[in-house]
Amino acid sequence: MFQRIAIIGLGLIGGSLGLALQKAKAAHRIVGYDQGKGVSDRARKIGAIDVAYSTLTDTLRDADLVIFATPVGAMRTLLQSSAPYLAPGAVVTDVASTKAQVITWAEEFLPATISFVGGHPMAGKELSGVEASDADLFKDHIYCLTPTARTRAIAIEKVAAMVEMIGARVRFLEPTEHDGQVAGVSHLPFLASIALVNTLAEDGAWEDASLLAASGFRDSSRLAAGSPEMYRDICLTNSEAITRWLDEYITSLQGLRTRIAAHDKDLDETFTQARQARQKWHAER
Amino acid sequence: MFQRIAIIGLGLIGGSLGLALQKAKAAHRIVGYDQGKGVSDRARKIGAIDVAYSTLTDTLRDADLVIFATPVGAMRTLLQSSAPYLAPGAVVTDVASTKAQVITWAEEFLPATISFVGGHPMAGKELSGVEASDADLFKDHIYCLTPTARTRAIAIEKVAAMVEMIGARVRFLEPTEHDGQVAGVSHLPFLASIALVNTLAEDGAWEDASLLAASGFRDSSRLAAGSPEMYRDICLTNSEAITRWLDEYITSLQGLRTRIAAHDKDLDETFTQARQARQKWHAER
Repeated sequence: MFQRIAIIGLGLIGGSLGLALQKAKAAHRIVGYDQGKGVSDRARKIGAIDVAYSTLTDTLRDADLVIFATPVGAMRTLLQSSAPYLAPGAVVTDVASTKAQVITWAEEFLPATISFVGGHPMAGKELSGVEASDADLFKDHIYCLTPTARTRAIAIEKVAAMVEMIGARVRFLEPTEHDGQVAGVSHLPFLASIALVNTLAEDGAWEDASLLAASGFRDSSRLAAGSPEMYRDICLTNSEAITRWLDEYITSLQGLRTRIAAHDKDLDETFTQARQARQKWHAER
Repeated sequence: MFQRIAIIGLGLIGGSLGLALQKAKAAHRIVGYDQGKGVSDRARKIGAIDVAYSTLTDTLRDADLVIFATPVGAMRTLLQSSAPYLAPGAVVTDVASTKAQVITWAEEFLPATISFVGGHPMAGKELSGVEASDADLFKDHIYCLTPTARTRAIAIEKVAAMVEMIGARVRFLEPTEHDGQVAGVSHLPFLASIALVNTLAEDGAWEDASLLAASGFRDSSRLAAGSPEMYRDICLTNSEAITRWLDEYITSLQGLRTRIAAHDKDLDETFTQARQARQKWHAER
């Protein structure tokens, strides 16, 4: 299908893409690069890539499909510094958590001969790093693609074919539609978790109270263990959608606060509503 | 140690207390009652109790330790209707999630010959019902006891001995101190989860967006699957502490909202603070 796939960034996502693409025999050769010391070699050893390069320039040479598998914070610089070395006609995609800003950068920096198709696989696990890579990480998971009116049809087809080869399900969305939806289902839960942990940990009695924290706190604080730098960059590139969701969330909490202060005996109806929505989501999953 | 222990309410907690107390040979006889059809018999069959009674009166007769293992919503009626049938000198304890209100009811309804010691085991699991009972449910978990200045020393000693027999660790707290701490580590996370699910599910694009919801949403929505009636009663009996925590939480979210809207590049410091507090809690656990 592809002659040469280049994967830039070999963490959990880049490494898993490599393994999944190798398993699907998606290319004659899969090459890779990571700026972390020794990372590319470890990716080669586990079979995620065939060749580990030590420079971005060498990695991009002659690749017909380039995957930027880095957090959104690295994307601007990466697009800018890659632009002169991409092969004419190459298709470029990424895996970053926000899409509108990345697409603006791609349109700004990439030459007209290059097609960029924004991507975002909805898969992950708690472990990170190339060692945690898994060829089945994307299997049956949704993989968002966010082409725009300017994206060439042939490039969209190629990236969609790549997504299907790794067992994921393509979902086409407008970039801003994608950013609004992930702000709700992913970025808002992270911020809710951060605020929860900080509210509790900043309280004078936390040292005592933390002894009483059990599975409820464990689950609702888990997201707060995520990468601070990655989430900072997500907030910086998806500020508008995130603040809109935070406003809705705060309004909902204020409603609960008012009713609890008033000893509202019908609170269970609101709790049942949430429980049912959660169960419906869980059942359909 | 005890002649006759009576357990009223044979769900997960009541059933597990029965199994754990049987294992510890804590009494010559353990008897039980549950108003649910067939529940007491099932508790007897799994060995949580020796005798299953069909009335509250019969169950309480001659018991020197009585455990009310019901949600807080049932406590007022239970204390009131039990009062005439408790054996003089009996020690009574409970497992309800909030303590100050329960203690007020106990002082209002129980005769002077009865000693009440408020209790709250910090243990549970996702499954409920007597079939999910586990003799080791409380092992190494904290078990709060909230005696007041009016509680007899001998009654406190007896309930503390019971807690140690089931392998749990006694933690003495003032009732209002307990309620304030659990409002933070347990009731606030529940309400944060409820508000999150309702905020998302009430949005027009939820049907589409829910397809993108993954492990982050799963973890932060899990608490919203809890019993609506139990949490309503918790809110009704712990309103003051809960609203105080909700105010703090909303303030924290508003702070994040302002900084995200302003594209604050130092947000990662706040995220790191939460991550470290979470990791510290996890490591000490």
